[in-house]
Amino acid sequence: MSLDRLIEKIEQTQNPTVAGLDPKLDYVPEFIRRKCFEKYGETLKGAAKALLEFNKGLIDALYDIVPAVKPQAAYYEMYGAAGVKTLYKTQEYARSKGMYVITDAKRNDIGTTMEAYAVAHLGRVKVGNTEIEPFLGDALTVNGYLGSDGIKPLLKVCSDNDKGIFVLVKTSNPSSGELQDRLIDGEPVYEVMGKMCENWGRELSGVYGYSGVGAVVGATYPEQIKRLRALLPETFFLIPGYGAQGASAADIAGAFDKNGLGGIVNSSRGIMCAYQKQKCSEHEFAEAARREAIRMRDEIMSFVGKITING
Amino acid sequence: MSLDRLIEKIEQTQNPTVAGLDPKLDYVPEFIRRKCFEKYGETLKGAAKALLEFNKGLIDALYDIVPAVKPQAAYYEMYGAAGVKTLYKTQEYARSKGMYVITDAKRNDIGTTMEAYAVAHLGRVKVGNTEIEPFLGDALTVNGYLGSDGIKPLLKVCSDNDKGIFVLVKTSNPSSGELQDRLIDGEPVYEVMGKMCENWGRELSGVYGYSGVGAVVGATYPEQIKRLRALLPETFFLIPGYGAQGASAADIAGAFDKNGLGGIVNSSRGIMCAYQKQKCSEHEFAEAARREAIRMRDEIMSFVGKITING
Repeated sequence: MSLDRLIEKIEQTQNPTVAGLDPKLDYVPEFIRRKCFEKYGETLKGAAKALLEFNKGLIDALYDIVPAVKPQAAYYEMYGAAGVKTLYKTQEYARSKGMYVITDAKRNDIGTTMEAYAVAHLGRVKVGNTEIEPFLGDALTVNGYLGSDGIKPLLKVCSDNDKGIFVLVKTSNPSSGELQDRLIDGEPVYEVMGKMCENWGRELSGVYGYSGVGAVVGATYPEQIKRLRALLPETFFLIPGYGAQGASAADIAGAFDKNGLGGIVNSSRGIMCAYQKQKCSEHEFAEAARREAIRMRDEIMSFVGKITING
Repeated sequence: MSLDRLIEKIEQTQNPTVAGLDPKLDYVPEFIRRKCFEKYGETLKGAAKALLEFNKGLIDALYDIVPAVKPQAAYYEMYGAAGVKTLYKTQEYARSKGMYVITDAKRNDIGTTMEAYAVAHLGRVKVGNTEIEPFLGDALTVNGYLGSDGIKPLLKVCSDNDKGIFVLVKTSNPSSGELQDRLIDGEPVYEVMGKMCENWGRELSGVYGYSGVGAVVGATYPEQIKRLRALLPETFFLIPGYGAQGASAADIAGAFDKNGLGGIVNSSRGIMCAYQKQKCSEHEFAEAARREAIRMRDEIMSFVGKITING
């Protein structure tokens, strides 16, 4: 009913990072693409099979040192229903390796429709007398623009299934300020949203001081991270924007509390495309990803210090 | 590159309404469910096949009098990858019958990720040397909380593929005001978002006075509809909240201009579950849906008057 399982994995691995799995076909090594196209043709199924094989290779290389993966739904939907099946299979494989799965889908709606999203991504659906998990996320990113009617249906499903959510608060992109930085009674919109998270989180309290309602806070805004950490003591942060978007480990330091908890930092392209950056053979994509994951962990841990969950 | 094709369909049918296809399994007549479970078991596939048969029956009953359908992605995702395949098949069937397809998915992200959503729902993806449409929407609902970085990638795809979007502005739910009604420099958030739509729309202008960037504006807030219509002369409205959520045809009148254009009103449960409300046999679900669609059209047209696209 909270993000406790994620926090435990972070402590076990001493690694507050998450590997984003955003597999554009261009990122997939050519030998994998060729093999899948030969077998399935240049079809959505062929693309989806290639993504899955790439993801499995990455998961195999990372699961013992990285606590979580974050598949980004958009890159699976881009390959149609076949791609969405690969999202499921990726979640299934990551779960089988003990990784925590954050589905990055930024879903949002109201009432029974939001309940349907909650069931889809964090719950179980009833088909006749059978209960089935449609997707296998442990946490889901969501957008809170619609207010409590969009969040409340998630809290019940999280509570029943020991799951969590991350609400968009201050996103990492350059134009995030167009709305999020505008002032409401002297307070920026992202702080108003952040306080709503802290409030929603009261229904999903956790044993390590953080609730089941986390916030997405971009690494590219270090001052805002620091301020939000002080303002939202029980809200865990999912932090995009490290690496490819230009933020450094120092920018993120303000997200963490004295126990080294408080946030998890995402890297997607940095890890997936490490073989390109390291200029090694595409057959070594997994080893390159592992090297980059270790480098990133060490860099971030040099600012975080030891992570401890018993205070 | 705009919503012109939708506007033409509305004029042809003299009907500014859209049938929401939000098929919870509970809404599907028992004889369809039983047949599909017998054939495919109590599986996600069995559920997905039942939804598809229900949807096809509804489309057959509506396509000559209702200009558009609006499948809600949540209800398909709730049945996993099999359900998402039914979303595609539903879009395909509606398109084959000449209906305009609004995919209600409220997607949002930034940069290349938002581009992936745009390609998924409104464009074509490249697989090797082959271009494929992953899904078959003519328009997509999106959430603008992330600012221009979340919308710009859509505009190019809309322009290239003659598609449109609807951005959440003032949603129909009771708690929409928690953020959307808060004041920024004396202006409510929903007006700030509305003006952003009007601005984004300049890149996708249409021949009938409305751009390719529409806005979602809830029927449950008649005063706000009227005000937004005046403020956003080139923004077409997608209007949820009629019927089940309590709004009447009179509440919506303010959305329309002197030519009877300016908005399209959604009904989901009202049409899908008409057979329950009319207390007729579940075998007559399609006829009941048609009767309700006609009743709704006539009620709304009594406020709108004649729809004309030549000014």
